[in-house]
Amino acid sequence: MRIYFATSNRHKVLEASSVLKRYSIEVEQIMVKKLEVQADDVEEIARTAAEDLCARRMDMTVVEDDGLYIKALEGFPGPYSEYVYRTLGLRRVLKLLEGVGDRSAFFKAAVGLCNNGVPHVFVGVVDGEIALEPRGLGGFGYDPIFIPKGYSLTFAELSIEEKSKISHRARAFQALAEWLLAHN
Amino acid sequence: MRIYFATSNRHKVLEASSVLKRYSIEVEQIMVKKLEVQADDVEEIARTAAEDLCARRMDMTVVEDDGLYIKALEGFPGPYSEYVYRTLGLRRVLKLLEGVGDRSAFFKAAVGLCNNGVPHVFVGVVDGEIALEPRGLGGFGYDPIFIPKGYSLTFAELSIEEKSKISHRARAFQALAEWLLAHN
Repeated sequence: MRIYFATSNRHKVLEASSVLKRYSIEVEQIMVKKLEVQADDVEEIARTAAEDLCARRMDMTVVEDDGLYIKALEGFPGPYSEYVYRTLGLRRVLKLLEGVGDRSAFFKAAVGLCNNGVPHVFVGVVDGEIALEPRGLGGFGYDPIFIPKGYSLTFAELSIEEKSKISHRARAFQALAEWLLAHN
Repeated sequence: MRIYFATSNRHKVLEASSVLKRYSIEVEQIMVKKLEVQADDVEEIARTAAEDLCARRMDMTVVEDDGLYIKALEGFPGPYSEYVYRTLGLRRVLKLLEGVGDRSAFFKAAVGLCNNGVPHVFVGVVDGEIALEPRGLGGFGYDPIFIPKGYSLTFAELSIEEKSKISHRARAFQALAEWLLAHN
């Protein structure tokens, strides 16, 4: 089986492939613009994008949206994580947490799929906490400052294989894969 | 003449009315959901929303999007100003500017209109700087920390009439009014 992944982010394609190959599902990156609305929850953003894929008759195509939700910052940067990464950067996000005791956070990913003209959304979450400083060279975005629960290393210090066992994105794509194998 | 303003923000309706009454244009607030995409510039967000109004045949209807662009923060919070206000709040935005010399910023508003099935966008900008602490009880959002260029008071310390002479939103609605009177 093959799915098309509408994204310009090569990291996301590699992580999705790393999960989906275990289910014999191939992933092909396609560079088409997805609809990306403003909403506080990535699940709503992915659902709207999946509905739009169906409106455009783009069957077996997926989109993915994800965000880092920091508890002490009321969920910020959440759905706007990519924008905040580009403007504030990790250094300033850490500055916002100076003197804050509770550094808990979670990453949430939502994969939107159009299948036989019907939109579906699959969600993955990983709990953890924000590191005191960036560590590691792997991954992308907030990976250097996110320590998943039960680990002492950041996402950026884990290999892509290790990250793909526990990450929010991996969990969302696992849910997608299991649904696809059961329904196609 | 009468236009319909698709917004849930009563402050924005009051400010628009304050400008448009000078052109004998009435404003009626309507509570319909507008399309609000993610983009770095409020002008693009308003344009997409205006195109969507036309697709829904909502003639003589306007939407407005605006944001506070802080130079030292690479434009942050920009198009996501409302979300950042709700999550970080003014106190944490000020924290990001601790020790920063250049506090310059601008407010930008973009009004999207559907007129005779064609989308139009009108932009207004006001330059200024970020106050050291919140001041004033008027306005809403970032008004207590924005000092327009040439003034010593914040937007929240000005009356609605004074703010409506110089604000980004006032300028965008003035441009709308002048265009409407010339083309209808």
